[in-house]
Amino acid sequence: MSRSRVGLIGFGTVGAAVYEQIQTNLWERFEVARVAVRDRGKARPAEIEDLLCDAQYLVQADDVDIVVEVIGGIHPAIDLIKLALTQGKRVVTANKELIARHYDELIAFGGDLRFEAAVAGGIPVIQVLRTLAQTNRITSIHGILNGTTNFILTEMETRQSELEPILKEAQAMGYAEADPTADVDGFDAMYKIAILGAIASGEQLDLETIPRSGIREISLTKMREAAEHERRIKLVASWTRESGARVTCQALPLDHPLSQVDGVMNAVTIEGDFMPTLTLIGPGAGGRPTSSAICGDLVAE
Amino acid sequence: MSRSRVGLIGFGTVGAAVYEQIQTNLWERFEVARVAVRDRGKARPAEIEDLLCDAQYLVQADDVDIVVEVIGGIHPAIDLIKLALTQGKRVVTANKELIARHYDELIAFGGDLRFEAAVAGGIPVIQVLRTLAQTNRITSIHGILNGTTNFILTEMETRQSELEPILKEAQAMGYAEADPTADVDGFDAMYKIAILGAIASGEQLDLETIPRSGIREISLTKMREAAEHERRIKLVASWTRESGARVTCQALPLDHPLSQVDGVMNAVTIEGDFMPTLTLIGPGAGGRPTSSAICGDLVAE
Repeated sequence: MSRSRVGLIGFGTVGAAVYEQIQTNLWERFEVARVAVRDRGKARPAEIEDLLCDAQYLVQADDVDIVVEVIGGIHPAIDLIKLALTQGKRVVTANKELIARHYDELIAFGGDLRFEAAVAGGIPVIQVLRTLAQTNRITSIHGILNGTTNFILTEMETRQSELEPILKEAQAMGYAEADPTADVDGFDAMYKIAILGAIASGEQLDLETIPRSGIREISLTKMREAAEHERRIKLVASWTRESGARVTCQALPLDHPLSQVDGVMNAVTIEGDFMPTLTLIGPGAGGRPTSSAICGDLVAE
Repeated sequence: MSRSRVGLIGFGTVGAAVYEQIQTNLWERFEVARVAVRDRGKARPAEIEDLLCDAQYLVQADDVDIVVEVIGGIHPAIDLIKLALTQGKRVVTANKELIARHYDELIAFGGDLRFEAAVAGGIPVIQVLRTLAQTNRITSIHGILNGTTNFILTEMETRQSELEPILKEAQAMGYAEADPTADVDGFDAMYKIAILGAIASGEQLDLETIPRSGIREISLTKMREAAEHERRIKLVASWTRESGARVTCQALPLDHPLSQVDGVMNAVTIEGDFMPTLTLIGPGAGGRPTSSAICGDLVAE
């Protein structure tokens, strides 16, 4: 059996991990045939140099069977993805904003589009939810879906510190973006719960109507008040069949399954009419976990 | 699209739940065409009466596309399953002992055999592990895989009672079998971890060499000693690539993810070389959760 040839658009933390994981665990079935990067001048591993090409060229190249998009953002990702799908290629993306904003359009566009890595990093929640949504009437989904804010909340509590110094530190270590709005103000979690809600309900959610709050309002005082009531503050993204999606900071009782999920870990609890509760917990970000989700989409039948 | 016709061998708690779940959530794609039961004299719902037939006939019937086996035990299940596979039919089974004891033989036999419900009830651990085993080198699996013993341990702790009275009560309520050996002595958990280990390693485990202990040795005194050291006693089924499988009672520290899994809930933690840790928690038994797993196998592509 000849190996499937992967074209990789993006070679940052996640892209490099996908390359490594294919070389390490999937080399019998896959090879990275081409790599497209924004900055051709940047130093790359020697073995990548020969594979470099333009993204527009990559998606149409005869020697690329599967396109993996890990650049993020709406443009040019959406046009590249559509072009690849038009060529009959499987497309694997980690692009949560793109999927959340264009879910109906992309489903209607047709083709083999997969996005396990777009939600909750390495947790295979899309795979699991897709099956459950066929066998159950899903009633609710609750999750800690943003690792950056969960890391900040955990550090605030552990070190009894206010948000700002922790955020600055997280930015310096690369855990948080220079512009932290997407994480801190709940947009990232909103995109992710919108995707899960779309799978559960079968149609795209209107992002403009999703109530959303982030963690900026969380002070050490609030956190201590919660602790006095034996609760912990978490940024919870929820979807229910009755009320739709929302992203809110909640003071969860200590015996709530999501209250004990710390640091960059993510967790999702799904409830259906036959399956009363299922919880998945794992690393919600990072090159290797995210790459595991992408590779899961590569091998999916 | 015409509906796939399901033949149901067994109509106990799980079989009846599968029938109900197909009627409720899967009627557009599936119908129960035939039902085989051991005791034809027993009263059944009226709509079942017309579907009743002999199991041997069922697996070969032209109007059965998919065979669901929920009678358990090795014989006659194994011959029925092989006959159905020979007919080119998908077979879905919840039969853990059969899969654990005949894994290599059944894989070599070929055909479309699925057994999500054989391990951890409603938790889709087979689906998740199958994907992870393709993308990761799985290094370890740890789980609470037997709901009956976990229920007994939880009740012993909550009510500060010895094992025997709780076991008797569980038997009276139908949570434990009249002959509780399979659960209480760790056989059930052993079959399940053997199946997970086989998927992770690619080959059947030798059940005779798996160290196995149950919960009979657990006294209230041992439980209190563990509590004094901030630990809880759990029956843990493990597989590691280095040491293979084992089933042992362990005093887990309170911050161990498996230590907080109570009652009939099951949990599994999987570790791989790219995915550092993934934990799945859900109901490990019961008609509807088990039926959800079976229905997941029905809809799987």
